[in-house]
Amino acid sequence: MTLTTIKRRGMMLVLSSPSGAGKTTLAKRLLETDQNFTMSVSVTTREKRQTEVHGQDYYFISPAAFKAKVDRGELLEHATVFGHSYGTPREPVEEALSQGLDVLFDIDWQGTQQLKEKAREDVVSIFILPPSRGELERRLKSRAQDTPEVVAQRMAKANDEISHWAEYDYVIVNDDIQAAETKITFIVEAERFKRNRQTGLSTFVRGLIA
Amino acid sequence: MTLTTIKRRGMMLVLSSPSGAGKTTLAKRLLETDQNFTMSVSVTTREKRQTEVHGQDYYFISPAAFKAKVDRGELLEHATVFGHSYGTPREPVEEALSQGLDVLFDIDWQGTQQLKEKAREDVVSIFILPPSRGELERRLKSRAQDTPEVVAQRMAKANDEISHWAEYDYVIVNDDIQAAETKITFIVEAERFKRNRQTGLSTFVRGLIA
Repeated sequence: MTLTTIKRRGMMLVLSSPSGAGKTTLAKRLLETDQNFTMSVSVTTREKRQTEVHGQDYYFISPAAFKAKVDRGELLEHATVFGHSYGTPREPVEEALSQGLDVLFDIDWQGTQQLKEKAREDVVSIFILPPSRGELERRLKSRAQDTPEVVAQRMAKANDEISHWAEYDYVIVNDDIQAAETKITFIVEAERFKRNRQTGLSTFVRGLIA
Repeated sequence: MTLTTIKRRGMMLVLSSPSGAGKTTLAKRLLETDQNFTMSVSVTTREKRQTEVHGQDYYFISPAAFKAKVDRGELLEHATVFGHSYGTPREPVEEALSQGLDVLFDIDWQGTQQLKEKAREDVVSIFILPPSRGELERRLKSRAQDTPEVVAQRMAKANDEISHWAEYDYVIVNDDIQAAETKITFIVEAERFKRNRQTGLSTFVRGLIA
């Protein structure tokens, strides 16, 4: 009997960071290199951007439809940012975890707090920090399509997000995207050997001491 | 500023397993490949074996000297196995951790419980399981110098040790020594990015949001 035959429960991996710290790139790379991961696709009431795809980046729904999901308890977490609502559908996540698949979340500190309240044992949270203040500002300003007001708003949001770094299990400073990717891989691989994720271990051990 | 300049506190890495599950080999390899680790050398009242070196495998001391250390609170944990006492000197461990060095412990479930009581935040515990009952028995019997009584005694101790697997943070089934070594490396690397081990992060983050 090899380790791979031991039944396991998936993890909920949360990546949070201020906008511009490389989180989106790191999430994309993890999904490309680790076939056991699926992305949690959030629902949102905000407008779809031109580059976004419904059902892939977000499910874009009406405020009324959003409220109905909240009322029916269909969201694992939800929050409002800049007047728009965002939430995580519960069912696909629970289905994946029970099959031993891991689910990746690109959510902010508010969502992370709610996930931890509802599923502490399943959540692994990583906060990505930019290497310096100057680098963060440079990255936030380099999105050409944004107005100065949007940049200022995002800077304020970045400060707010960073202030919650100490609520996360792991913290990675992204001073090199390749190195940061490797660190996330270490964390993911290690977490797979956490005792409480290997739900088949009790059965395995009974065979050892029988 | 790079991640390596962020002040950190070392971890206390505990490897436990029944005798014959490969723990000693895995500990040796980790010490050889990871320069940040030092081994915690225990004190014991048992006789030195021919192959053992004082101050390297153990500090071999008298029962009176052992008792004096317990009375003065100089041991982080201590236990009695087969009539002999074993204990972990506190001072070298605390010195190493505060310098950001990691310390490796080859101790049993009794010692692990005591370490966790005294230093929960610092302890990372890994339990190594043999791949099967047959393989465990084969490994226990293959030590030519042992009498059948010693083998039987060790088998009983193995069952007792295995029964405590669920008290550990991580569990690794050693069905391949190279694979098990890699898994330990993942765990060690991941644990270094735990928020609470990077004691310099508060200072770093103050620079980001200033």
